[in-house]
Amino acid sequence: MKDIQSTPDYRKISLREAGIKDLKYPITILDREQKEQTTVADISMSVSLPHHFKGTHMSRFLEVLTDSGCRFTGSTIPVVLKKLKEALEAESARISISFPYFLTRRAPVTGAEAKMSYQCVFTGESNKDSEDFVLTVTVPVSTLCPCSREISKAGAHNQRGYITMEVRTEKESNSTFAMLWIEELVEIAEASASSPLYTILKRPDEKFLTEQAYNNPVFVEDIVRNVAEKLRKDQRVTQFTVTAENHESIHNHNAYAVVSWTRPASPENDSCI
Amino acid sequence: MKDIQSTPDYRKISLREAGIKDLKYPITILDREQKEQTTVADISMSVSLPHHFKGTHMSRFLEVLTDSGCRFTGSTIPVVLKKLKEALEAESARISISFPYFLTRRAPVTGAEAKMSYQCVFTGESNKDSEDFVLTVTVPVSTLCPCSREISKAGAHNQRGYITMEVRTEKESNSTFAMLWIEELVEIAEASASSPLYTILKRPDEKFLTEQAYNNPVFVEDIVRNVAEKLRKDQRVTQFTVTAENHESIHNHNAYAVVSWTRPASPENDSCI
Amino acid sequence: MKDIQSTPDYRKISLREAGIKDLKYPITILDREQKEQTTVADISMSVSLPHHFKGTHMSRFLEVLTDSGCRFTGSTIPVVLKKLKEALEAESARISISFPYFLTRRAPVTGAEAKMSYQCVFTGESNKDSEDFVLTVTVPVSTLCPCSREISKAGAHNQRGYITMEVRTEKESNSTFAMLWIEELVEIAEASASSPLYTILKRPDEKFLTEQAYNNPVFVEDIVRNVAEKLRKDQRVTQFTVTAENHESIHNHNAYAVVSWTRPASPENDSCI
Amino acid sequence: MKDIQSTPDYRKISLREAGIKDLKYPITILDREQKEQTTVADISMSVSLPHHFKGTHMSRFLEVLTDSGCRFTGSTIPVVLKKLKEALEAESARISISFPYFLTRRAPVTGAEAKMSYQCVFTGESNKDSEDFVLTVTVPVSTLCPCSREISKAGAHNQRGYITMEVRTEKESNSTFAMLWIEELVEIAEASASSPLYTILKRPDEKFLTEQAYNNPVFVEDIVRNVAEKLRKDQRVTQFTVTAENHESIHNHNAYAVVSWTRPASPENDSCI
Repeated sequence: MKDIQSTPDYRKISLREAGIKDLKYPITILDREQKEQTTVADISMSVSLPHHFKGTHMSRFLEVLTDSGCRFTGSTIPVVLKKLKEALEAESARISISFPYFLTRRAPVTGAEAKMSYQCVFTGESNKDSEDFVLTVTVPVSTLCPCSREISKAGAHNQRGYITMEVRTEKESNSTFAMLWIEELVEIAEASASSPLYTILKRPDEKFLTEQAYNNPVFVEDIVRNVAEKLRKDQRVTQFTVTAENHESIHNHNAYAVVSWTRPASPENDSCI
Repeated sequence: MKDIQSTPDYRKISLREAGIKDLKYPITILDREQKEQTTVADISMSVSLPHHFKGTHMSRFLEVLTDSGCRFTGSTIPVVLKKLKEALEAESARISISFPYFLTRRAPVTGAEAKMSYQCVFTGESNKDSEDFVLTVTVPVSTLCPCSREISKAGAHNQRGYITMEVRTEKESNSTFAMLWIEELVEIAEASASSPLYTILKRPDEKFLTEQAYNNPVFVEDIVRNVAEKLRKDQRVTQFTVTAENHESIHNHNAYAVVSWTRPASPENDSCI
Repeated sequence: MKDIQSTPDYRKISLREAGIKDLKYPITILDREQKEQTTVADISMSVSLPHHFKGTHMSRFLEVLTDSGCRFTGSTIPVVLKKLKEALEAESARISISFPYFLTRRAPVTGAEAKMSYQCVFTGESNKDSEDFVLTVTVPVSTLCPCSREISKAGAHNQRGYITMEVRTEKESNSTFAMLWIEELVEIAEASASSPLYTILKRPDEKFLTEQAYNNPVFVEDIVRNVAEKLRKDQRVTQFTVTAENHESIHNHNAYAVVSWTRPASPENDSCI
Repeated sequence: MKDIQSTPDYRKISLREAGIKDLKYPITILDREQKEQTTVADISMSVSLPHHFKGTHMSRFLEVLTDSGCRFTGSTIPVVLKKLKEALEAESARISISFPYFLTRRAPVTGAEAKMSYQCVFTGESNKDSEDFVLTVTVPVSTLCPCSREISKAGAHNQRGYITMEVRTEKESNSTFAMLWIEELVEIAEASASSPLYTILKRPDEKFLTEQAYNNPVFVEDIVRNVAEKLRKDQRVTQFTVTAENHESIHNHNAYAVVSWTRPASPENDSCI
């Protein structure tokens, strides 16, 4: 049976990526408290394609994925990327795994327990001479407007907002990066907003959170600065982009802010952009 | 060229609908102030299919649509439905047209002007012996929690919410229904929540709205009851379903309420469910 | 602390539903081969609200949910609904659980194995004197156009389509309904289209499926009739609605067909609409 | 009334962006045949924020937008960006305008006419010393698999695919860039796939397209190379990224390919990645 994909191509155009997208698949990931948890991911995988090949072999992505056992951690992702490069005879490989991660949370006063979901992405890349890993975590929070509070006789508009942190950590050895728990990023985000969100809240909890938010007004600009301050103090972190987006309760559009930072070679040159 | 769709079918199964979906198309609709406005719609159209036909002729839906000039009002939709029935030799026809409708709004204190969008749907159906038309309008609003306000020392959680009204009006003549302006439903919805939303707000407006919301706390249950009270007093209205959904600012899930009502034969039997 | 929700309401408007929506939560469900599987659901829950209560107690939905252990089957859902009615002092309760369900599938020639996801919904309702349960399964398939095949010298346009089956089964005892496996509906849908889809396919499999589709051309109208024929022969099934939607490869809009059927009191009156 | 946004901030963190997102607004854009067309856009706008300001003034984005008249072209966008920088006292400003663009298309054989929509994005950026403009156009097409065609006795799987072209053109004067019509990118994309899509097709057209696709099999890799070959020959184009994504009709996931290119200083160094 003819292998069309392996036939030569004469257009002399190498491709940055050829691969698959939007594959829904059950996966297992590490959990700081429960050791591991099973969830459902949207997966994309790709490799670079040299100019002389007509096409990549799409079925091999799935073979590498199913052979991997679908357990994804900072140490298994480099292995998957290496196998993708081998199976597809490619110089570089990428994988992106997006999934909801669940944490059991206790309401602040009554301690009522339920799970909260946090959308996360693992993005790994392996090139000829370099490797990359980015952990992205999105944390829903409550945000109360400092301006509205200052100028109004009573109350202050507040709303649900989403804080997205894309974080790179220091490379520790050949192909692993310093471990940062999803739980750590959730804590940083929640401490940077007006108040956290919970799945279950009884009346004493609702009173507590309403007052906590009223006492901690923040703009989206404040949120990304609060998160940035905490992340750049963490010696494991080498680069981040933080976005905060408020689903404004006085508008039908959203407000947002973005900050990016790269650890400088020398501390005097430290600056966010 | 053989017409496969017209070949007979022996399975003796009539179909409720055969048609097209998710067609994006520019349309013109009536506007109370500007006479008309152009917007972009998602359109679906279908007809019933008798058991003896294998398939419907999908291209004819598009011919009827383009011939119609894409001006949609309470009086042009029955014409389109009639033409669909003729062109497709069908007993019944349906059309659904979903679009953002824009209104120029003035901020409550400074009068600053900008457009706000309201998602609307026209749903028309023509059967052998009956006709139907439903106007659906979704209005974004601000909602402030009465419980949170009551139990907290200061502030009260509030959030963006969406009120969806699906309304039928009295049939006036052969195939038209009593006219209800989108603008009227927007006014009813906004008057039923804690405060309206605006695209542009200066600080004095923000102060006004924050205080207005604080003084008008509502649960989702209150909102749908407030809307229901107003709609059932309107003699043009014969049936409605109202849904309110809050994007809770203390949870990552939403709260909602639904009420339905049909004008009773005699006023004593009036009840919502 | 004042319980605002329990204060009386004087508008005399009962509500069909008050509840929560869009809660993402890990759940466990039955699996014909593996006994059970863990997946991630979007959950909504509601109760009716009598006219004399101002609001429902939203936190109790979450308490009932977490107490239930989040194992959902035909026999646990009636228990959850009963508890919702008790906890919220309501006459009726509803729950809707939407989730991807995974099946290990083997490619038709090489037998290569990987998981496929099928989107499912369990919808349960418990009223004063009646109970209801609907199983909804959406199966992605391949569909090849009979008209295109007939009129063209070579080839035929084909595309990905989605078959959605909403099925009610016979009530067996107080509150359980005859069991229908998700796997059974997947088989019925795949046998009603041009060919099934697989996550992993090697070249001999691709050849097999291409030819299988070419030899089994179907319109959306054929698909829903094929499914309807199979479902109405199944004595467990009492009612269904089947929708097929093709993401047409020659258009940027979709084609669809819908059929509904209710088991008649006597077989002579059998008809789909 | 206190202006909280203008109060100083001591965290020494400058922000890359602060602004608004997901604003739905009617806009007018240039149309090669009709001179101009009205459509509906999703708009985001942002400015950089110096470290010493606490927040930006969100309402000014809307003032600049409404004052602009919402006519967006290669020459009005730089004006809007300049006004954003002035109104918000910022060093840089960004705007992104995403909208469906409609073209009247004639079916290839019968000439039947209807509109097709193409999703487009205008992205403009004005920094201290540089300016940027990217035109993004997504074109839906039909793609037929060369491998499936080669190995199968009859037929070949095909499907709807989407080609997205993000293109930068040469800077012509102070702040305008060489004009590239959306229509030109649509033509390039359609000529790079197996066949174009149409809104309305009669049987002779369907036959024509089925055969055209069968005679032009392409992988996603071929598509992006075909587009790249045409774009890099165009002297106005200085940089592009092209993505092709197929909604595979034999899988429930998508296949995709990406190519990027920057016009080299000297032609010998030309290469895509």
